Amino acid sequence: MKRVAVLTSGGDAPGMNAAIRAVVRTSIYRRLEAVGVMKGFEGLIDGEFVPLTRSSVGGIIHRGGTILKTARSERFKTEEGVNRAFFQLKNAGIDGLAIIGGDGSFRGAQKLYEKGFPVIGIPGTIDNDVAGTDETIGFDTAVNTALEAVKKLRDTASSHDRLFIVEVMGREAGFIALEVAVASGAEYLVVPELPFSLGKLCDKLHDTRERGKTHSLIIVAEGAMSASALRAQLQDTAGYDARVTVLGYIQRGGSPTSFDAVLASRMGAFAVESLIEGKHGVMVGTMAHQMALTPLAESWQTKKRLSPEKLELVEKLSI
Amino acid sequence: MKRVAVLTSGGDAPGMNAAIRAVVRTSIYRRLEAVGVMKGFEGLIDGEFVPLTRSSVGGIIHRGGTILKTARSERFKTEEGVNRAFFQLKNAGIDGLAIIGGDGSFRGAQKLYEKGFPVIGIPGTIDNDVAGTDETIGFDTAVNTALEAVKKLRDTASSHDRLFIVEVMGREAGFIALEVAVASGAEYLVVPELPFSLGKLCDKLHDTRERGKTHSLIIVAEGAMSASALRAQLQDTAGYDARVTVLGYIQRGGSPTSFDAVLASRMGAFAVESLIEGKHGVMVGTMAHQMALTPLAESWQTKKRLSPEKLELVEKLSI
Amino acid sequence: MKRVAVLTSGGDAPGMNAAIRAVVRTSIYRRLEAVGVMKGFEGLIDGEFVPLTRSSVGGIIHRGGTILKTARSERFKTEEGVNRAFFQLKNAGIDGLAIIGGDGSFRGAQKLYEKGFPVIGIPGTIDNDVAGTDETIGFDTAVNTALEAVKKLRDTASSHDRLFIVEVMGREAGFIALEVAVASGAEYLVVPELPFSLGKLCDKLHDTRERGKTHSLIIVAEGAMSASALRAQLQDTAGYDARVTVLGYIQRGGSPTSFDAVLASRMGAFAVESLIEGKHGVMVGTMAHQMALTPLAESWQTKKRLSPEKLELVEKLSI
Amino acid sequence: MKRVAVLTSGGDAPGMNAAIRAVVRTSIYRRLEAVGVMKGFEGLIDGEFVPLTRSSVGGIIHRGGTILKTARSERFKTEEGVNRAFFQLKNAGIDGLAIIGGDGSFRGAQKLYEKGFPVIGIPGTIDNDVAGTDETIGFDTAVNTALEAVKKLRDTASSHDRLFIVEVMGREAGFIALEVAVASGAEYLVVPELPFSLGKLCDKLHDTRERGKTHSLIIVAEGAMSASALRAQLQDTAGYDARVTVLGYIQRGGSPTSFDAVLASRMGAFAVESLIEGKHGVMVGTMAHQMALTPLAESWQTKKRLSPEKLELVEKLSI
Repeated sequence: MKRVAVLTSGGDAPGMNAAIRAVVRTSIYRRLEAVGVMKGFEGLIDGEFVPLTRSSVGGIIHRGGTILKTARSERFKTEEGVNRAFFQLKNAGIDGLAIIGGDGSFRGAQKLYEKGFPVIGIPGTIDNDVAGTDETIGFDTAVNTALEAVKKLRDTASSHDRLFIVEVMGREAGFIALEVAVASGAEYLVVPELPFSLGKLCDKLHDTRERGKTHSLIIVAEGAMSASALRAQLQDTAGYDARVTVLGYIQRGGSPTSFDAVLASRMGAFAVESLIEGKHGVMVGTMAHQMALTPLAESWQTKKRLSPEKLELVEKLSI
Repeated sequence: MKRVAVLTSGGDAPGMNAAIRAVVRTSIYRRLEAVGVMKGFEGLIDGEFVPLTRSSVGGIIHRGGTILKTARSERFKTEEGVNRAFFQLKNAGIDGLAIIGGDGSFRGAQKLYEKGFPVIGIPGTIDNDVAGTDETIGFDTAVNTALEAVKKLRDTASSHDRLFIVEVMGREAGFIALEVAVASGAEYLVVPELPFSLGKLCDKLHDTRERGKTHSLIIVAEGAMSASALRAQLQDTAGYDARVTVLGYIQRGGSPTSFDAVLASRMGAFAVESLIEGKHGVMVGTMAHQMALTPLAESWQTKKRLSPEKLELVEKLSI
Repeated sequence: MKRVAVLTSGGDAPGMNAAIRAVVRTSIYRRLEAVGVMKGFEGLIDGEFVPLTRSSVGGIIHRGGTILKTARSERFKTEEGVNRAFFQLKNAGIDGLAIIGGDGSFRGAQKLYEKGFPVIGIPGTIDNDVAGTDETIGFDTAVNTALEAVKKLRDTASSHDRLFIVEVMGREAGFIALEVAVASGAEYLVVPELPFSLGKLCDKLHDTRERGKTHSLIIVAEGAMSASALRAQLQDTAGYDARVTVLGYIQRGGSPTSFDAVLASRMGAFAVESLIEGKHGVMVGTMAHQMALTPLAESWQTKKRLSPEKLELVEKLSI
Repeated sequence: MKRVAVLTSGGDAPGMNAAIRAVVRTSIYRRLEAVGVMKGFEGLIDGEFVPLTRSSVGGIIHRGGTILKTARSERFKTEEGVNRAFFQLKNAGIDGLAIIGGDGSFRGAQKLYEKGFPVIGIPGTIDNDVAGTDETIGFDTAVNTALEAVKKLRDTASSHDRLFIVEVMGREAGFIALEVAVASGAEYLVVPELPFSLGKLCDKLHDTRERGKTHSLIIVAEGAMSASALRAQLQDTAGYDARVTVLGYIQRGGSPTSFDAVLASRMGAFAVESLIEGKHGVMVGTMAHQMALTPLAESWQTKKRLSPEKLELVEKLSI
């Protein structure tokens, strides 16, 4: 191996830059050249390569977003697009490609791998919904960002004796919602993985008021229901007057937490070491804190499950 | 004077607790008793008084929201309600009342004053739209909270080459929007005080793209237009695909900034000193950094204006 | 079981309040009474008990420090002190005691357990130096606090082309230092677990300058060496002019991160469930993300080791 | 005028980059060229100029430190150094120079001005000790950084019933210390502007304890006394056992607050407009919120005073 490329794909996540830095620095440490691909698969098809040196990744470890940018690529969904990307990689003398993204990005990675190109995946998504790894880059930061926001809402909820519904990210999965619910001591949680019962929620709210709690907090994952739909249901059925906040894109941004900066550094370094050892078509991940490799396909074929222990905590600790 | 009461009214604002603390501690320092009124005018009508000591306001200076809670009061809008409140104050042996809130709250304060009760206003609202004072308690914190959020959005906007529209609070006034726009280097600002021109905005966005800027940021005050309405207009008229974030209630919460903690402390202390000196029916405020008093009516009769200098900066510095 | 008590001991750590809340709420959920012991073993000896209800732990999940306070106890080191504490517990009708603290606190817990009292340990210390658990409550928050500080120092280091030495907490162990070094991209790390070589450090600094890096960052765990001692050595031996910052007690404070709030909630709940199941003389902990129990003695008899993978990353990624 | 240069000098301060951006963007807006001088007067002597475009200052508004770097210059203290700098400016076709820094930097600026070069000063220093302006760039951020740290210390002080001494920056002036003391509700303040009385402090501490406050906080400006010297005095004279934290360089770093980002933007823009209008040898500043110009010499010849109102608040509100 002489030259390693790295790209970011899908939604951006805090820590992606730390992962890019780790890929580049480890490559150089191992006497390989490092190349960045701009704008994900789209830039790959167009051959948008930039050389990356030690210093071009200096100071980016704490920066949110991705210096390589990211984009959706319709073209990469076609056979022609994949072929073109393959050609660009070969043409640029690249011997291995690290792809930072979520399971959608790994489907793309798999196609290149099936063509015979050495690829490796690095799970970077705030949603944490990637099997084969206990944690994904960006999840911890997104959860802390959401928690900070929820703490501010608590202040105002408590001052006005109000019911707040907070919608957090998570189209397919409730990981962010669950973590934030436990961390913020929320009274109720709505996630796509579990059936929603308006009756149960109303009972809980009723009990809460009975016991003298004057304000309550409901966390909803966007994939389960919109916060405003839930507000309407609560209003219509039980006359509750709730306030709604949709946290939105702020959850994607910001400087990575220590956890994410470290995780991204570990994953980026391990990805390069694995490429050097000839491991391809796999995704790096953590399993019980250790670095591990899983076939790329695992990331979207296996469904990662919410922790029953944490789900129970929401119930138990919000009494 | 023997006994001073304090209440918070209207929307909560960071720093209200610091103001409560200052009212209480200054009262005690001046050998007066301090009493808190729960839930604003509503609690006043119901005589919900709590004695406040040195230690009951210990540790609250940094806490968001208001320990005295706040609420809307329909009853206080009636003659009967005001009379009842007056009676409760007299009955509890209270000689002066400090009311922390916005101009709406000061209209209520004025009614009590006209009945002959010694009241003084302390401007606490994130909106800063209160004449008679350069700054209101909570504004600086709200602006910083919004700025932190916008900085996170910049990360993702820049990674995806996207146009973002951020809706900030401000039903009547664009103070938050303007401050955030300058502080974040936003490309465009929409406020209730100025006419909105879709054409001008499209020209600006076009110019920005021409010059190679790939992402842009528009700050909208809720009172001017909703962010989603603006998105729809941009989509329909010019084909721009913008992302929307409504910051919402998080702007009200959180621990006060140093500026707000100091401002609230100054205002709370000055309010008590002014009551002692027999100044009633007035609002404390800052003018050119000095503490000042203005008749309560000024707060809603005079319209505070946006700084033309700052408005020009948005234009000038976002090139 | 009818009554569960909880105390905090040793240095305070962010998340202790979240653990207290979880102990109390889980107890009540399981129809037990909850009692707080003030000031650690000192208050235990004096019988300083306070009843804790659902609402007395409301709103404390995010608060730094410990509402039960903590203190050193010389008396508890004596046979008489332990006997007195045992008596107080029996006398107050307490059937189980959860002790939140570090390994020093667990030595105390062990003594009570050996007298026959049902105790359980919850590892709460920013240092993470407790065997039997992958993580301790407060570590993640302390690391993030230190990281935020180091990021600020980077700004000034970079503006002045300076060498900075940052001393972080860790009297016995380098966990905080190692995590911060990886997360901040520090150029060098000094921890008590590894021998320090001034020569190697000077070589590294020299190489770094050679390659054009104008500023560098050294992280030192207080247990290895003081930052000012290291500065003096660098000055005397190699003429380097370094700036020193000792982060100190700020690392103990602050609102817990999401990770710590969740960890503390899990541990507190699991401690009560374990007491109910008759598990005594053990410490709750996480092992590969699962809740686990270990004999108390393990916490101080086994030495937890720094991750060789992370140690290597400091070297590899700071090139 | 055709070409404007900008440099940063002295200690770095948050918001310097926002000021650089404003100087550059306003210059370009006014159809002038912008040039950056690296490393303050040192780089000026060496002719280290870099062209600055719209995009070279894109994204720097929130960044701590200064992209132009800063350094001390012994050479600039000599006649020869100043002549050389003058020559470099002329040689590079520069028609005006904006110097961002503190009063020390303005002494340098004055020398260039006296040679006949059009210079203008922009007050950028966290210390706020520059006469001729109500606020300096970086002060608000530094105060908020210090306040955040002090809030964390309060947690641990309160948990352990301890006395803490916090040393903040301010070699000549107590502005940071005073602001932090009011904002944090500190029990005592030691600043260089006022005589220190150990007796008075001990009385205060004694009274505080008497009234049941178990923890206290003393803020010391480094220019008055070191925190450890004060600890020693308290220990020796009255047996108080205090903990010490020296906040140090973290106060210089970090992303500017909204206030500082706006102030820096205003000052940078106004500096260029003033240069265009032929105003030289002056410093821009704010007076009662309005932009103003003062002769450079004023900045060091006049002593800015601490607010007696705020000094009184520390006394009054910490009862």
